[in-house]
Parts: sequence; C-alpha cells; structure tokens
Amino acid sequence: MISIIEDGRPGWENILSRAFTKTGHAYRIGITGPPGAGKSSLTNLLVKLFTSKNLKTAVIAVDPTSPFTGGALLGDRVRMRDITSLGDTYIRSMASRGSLGGLSRKTVDAADIIDAAGFDIIILETVGVGQSELDIARLADCTIVTLVPESGDSIQAMKAGLMEIADLFVLNKCDRPGSDSAYSSLKTILSIAGKEIPVIKTIASTNGGITELAEEILKLKESQFAGGVILKKRKENYNIRIRQIISEKLSERLWTSGREQYLRNSLENLIVDKLSPFEIADRIIKQFENELK
Amino acid sequence: MISIIEDGRPGWENILSRAFTKTGHAYRIGITGPPGAGKSSLTNLLVKLFTSKNLKTAVIAVDPTSPFTGGALLGDRVRMRDITSLGDTYIRSMASRGSLGGLSRKTVDAADIIDAAGFDIIILETVGVGQSELDIARLADCTIVTLVPESGDSIQAMKAGLMEIADLFVLNKCDRPGSDSAYSSLKTILSIAGKEIPVIKTIASTNGGITELAEEILKLKESQFAGGVILKKRKENYNIRIRQIISEKLSERLWTSGREQYLRNSLENLIVDKLSPFEIADRIIKQFENELK
Repeated sequence: MISIIEDGRPGWENILSRAFTKTGHAYRIGITGPPGAGKSSLTNLLVKLFTSKNLKTAVIAVDPTSPFTGGALLGDRVRMRDITSLGDTYIRSMASRGSLGGLSRKTVDAADIIDAAGFDIIILETVGVGQSELDIARLADCTIVTLVPESGDSIQAMKAGLMEIADLFVLNKCDRPGSDSAYSSLKTILSIAGKEIPVIKTIASTNGGITELAEEILKLKESQFAGGVILKKRKENYNIRIRQIISEKLSERLWTSGREQYLRNSLENLIVDKLSPFEIADRIIKQFENELK
Repeated sequence: MISIIEDGRPGWENILSRAFTKTGHAYRIGITGPPGAGKSSLTNLLVKLFTSKNLKTAVIAVDPTSPFTGGALLGDRVRMRDITSLGDTYIRSMASRGSLGGLSRKTVDAADIIDAAGFDIIILETVGVGQSELDIARLADCTIVTLVPESGDSIQAMKAGLMEIADLFVLNKCDRPGSDSAYSSLKTILSIAGKEIPVIKTIASTNGGITELAEEILKLKESQFAGGVILKKRKENYNIRIRQIISEKLSERLWTSGREQYLRNSLENLIVDKLSPFEIADRIIKQFENELK
C-alpha cells in the first residue's frame, strides 16, 4: 500500500482515507539533527530496545537526496540488515522523487498505513535538518533533536529553529572532548528561553544512555496520552497536513500542459517583453480562474 | 522600497514590476553552506575586495530564524559595522516573518531593487543549508557552497543536493588538520559525478585564498555573460520565481477567514467525524472553486 501511495497509483487517496479511520494507536517519533550526529545509530538501538519490550516497531528512513537528480548518493542501507532480522520490525526507506515538499507528505501518509497496520511505535528518521526534514520530524507526536558536542553546534541548532520543534534533545557522542561544556551550554540556552526540554546524553557506539533515552520517550508518551496533549498535537499536525494537500492539489490543477507551455513562451520573450514575473504570474492565474468559471 | 516590499505595503508589486525593467546588470552571488563554515567572514572579505576594484557591492544577509517564533536568536550583525564604513556598500539583513517560503521570494525581490539601483555585485548570504536557503542561493547567477575540512562534511553536502546547485566550492578553514584529504575527497567526488566545479581553498581568518576566490568569481561572471549562459540561467530562475508567486497568490486567495474557520471546525470534529485529511482538503478546494464560478 505504501508503494501505491509513493507512486501515486490509482486509488492511493482512497487507501489513505480508509486507513485513516484505523489510525491513532501508534506513537510517532521524529528524529532529526545535523548530518553526522548519529541519528541512524540511535534509531537502530531504539528499535532493538523497543522490540525487546514487545513493542511492535517500524522505521521510516527519510533520505531527501537531491532535489534535482532525485538519486541517492552513497545512501547505503547496509545497517538495516542489523535490525531487519528482529521479529516484528518493519523498515522502509523513502526518498524524494523530484519534489521535496511532496516527500514530507508521503512520509506521513506511509506512517498512517503503518499505524493502521497495528504498530506501536513508528520512528521517522531524517538525514539532516533541511526544511522538509524539519517538516517530517515535527509532524510526529514526539520530536527528538540529536546534537553532538561540537562548538557552536547547539547555538546553530537554535538558530535553525530546532528548539521550537524539540520535545527531547539528545547529546550524542558524549565520549568526545567538550561534551560536558556542550551539555551545560545547551541547558543554559534552554533555560534562558524558558523551555523545559529534557537533554539526554548518549554514546551510541557503546550503547550508553540508550535505556535512559527510551525511558524518557515512553514517559513522554504516557504523559501526552494521559493529559490529552496528544490530541492537541495531532490536530496541529493535521492542520499543517491539510494545507499541504490543498496546495499540492491546486498546483496540480493549475499546471496543465497548456499553461506550462504558456510559461515557457513567456520566459522566452521575457527580455523583449519586459513583463515582470508578477505580471506573468497574474496572467496565468487569470487563465486558471477563467477556466474554472 | 525594500521595506515596502518586505512589509507587503500597498503598491509593492507595482514597484517591483517597474524596477524589473531596469534589472539585469548586477551579478548575483549566492553563498550557502553548513552553519559554522565561515560564510559571513568570506562575504565580508569579498565585499572589501570587490569594493577595492570599484565594483559597487551590496549584501543581503538572509537569516531564516525560526519558522515558529520568527525571532532571530543571537542574530548579531555586529560584524556589519566592519564593512558599512566602506563607501558604496549597501547591506541589508532579511529575516523570515512567518513563512520560510516567502523569505526566498522577498530576498530575490530585494535583489531586483538593488540591481535596478545600479549595483554591480549582489551577495546573497544565508546562514545554513535549509530548503529556503538553498532556494535563495540557487536563485543567484553564481552559487558558492562553503565547506570546512571535517570528516564526512563533503559527502553530507552532496547528499543535501549541494553539488547540483554549486558553481564554485570553497573549502574554508584550510589551516585545520585534514584539509588536504578533505580537498582531495571533494575533488574525487566531483570527478566521479562528472562535474567540473572549481574548488578554492581559503583561510578567511588570515585572508588566505580570497584574491583567488574573487578572481574565480569574476572569471565565471565573464564567461557566463560572454556565452549567453547567464540568460539561460536567469530564465530558469524566473521560471522558479513565477511558480512561487503563483502558489503564494492562490494560497492567499484560498485561505479567507471563512475557510480558516471551516478548517478549524473540521479539526475539532476530526476524531468524531473520522474524515481524513484528504476528504477535508477536497471539501475546502470545492468551496474555493464554487466561489470562483
């Protein structure tokens, strides 16, 4: 079903609308952070740990790759062999096919299918902190931002808006020099900003701190479900999702081959006509409106 | 005029359409790369160098900040004092006000105004490699991707799609250990991919390699103008821009307060009604279409 949705084959929307009525059980965890922060290793360890607790766990590994070629570079999924041997684990790799915006939508769609299939935990793992990766991570129930103890890393993370989407910070590779000062500067920034976001220190390479991390996640899950917070969060997520769907659908309808051709012609004559991008845009919108009338 | 455009005050589109007829002279340089790569320092040095060559130079510093709060964190512009004392230099800082997508459009709009005002060089400097920052950098005539000699950095850059948008790579902080191997691995990756993109080594802190970088930029500029490549590139950029404008305008028209309210109500009843996001989206689009008829 995920493949049908990914390819946009006939009936994909129906599948999703039907699956939707069966969603709501799975807890969705988004993992994001700069490249090299160890997100894949943490994901692997969490999967093993959740599975050992009899929680049916799935991973959606999101690799936006290039917005231009669509091809994954060195995107090995070798590590996956490590966890696919575990019983009830489902792993899916998703890459962008042209549109980055589309990727975040399809990823959430895939999560709906997995949710409807009865999984307990879905981990959405992204490769970096691009906009579409942030979109994916924040469309989860719980967003984990992974950082490493390198100078300025935490400040840069805050600049990139990660503080606003994080429910949990992980400071990984805490065997590296400077991890203590990185930890305290992260705590300081959070306290200045008035944010009570837990920070967990881990060393993924030696399994350090993973039990604490998993416990913190399950604690958060419990409190979100208990207080009805989860419902509020999910409504916000649906809000974003519905807007994305509308914007994609309108764009699909507008960009008929006729209007694509009109745009190409306008661009050819741009230098001669001296029509501004705004004037060309207005003409295309007018055409679209006239067609709807 | 840039402020009028930034705020969306009455007449902003007219200003842009009129300015557009006077654009085309300025060479637009986009500088992007991961946080901490030294983009600001390189920008400063390039401004000084171009100015010393009697090229009227402007900088648009783009700081997307948080998509949620819209507030710049620690976004100091102290360094700016260093170059504002130079004669014909214009510096403008632009931040996102809510919509990240909008930021890339407004930045290009501002560049049009500066171009029409008779500047020779416009540097568009971004703080990271988020999607909107990539959008800004690639809407330039020449896109410079700045990296540092850290392990895996170049591979991660390629994953993020930077190879496809780069006209020029800068390997900054080349006084750091591992810079030689980083340089050769970058060259190797580019050669495997069949890309002939120059790589310039710099040490911004000691002004090292800046003359070579500026020369390479001006060489590229000359060859682009001579071969008509610039026209092709600019048409591609207008193509992207026009699509952005259309999508924003449609979205503005669709999201009236009535439909915002309808969406809020639908979200409130989501759990009871079990209407999927797709079904809600369809209903809202149908309302919009009926209104246009």
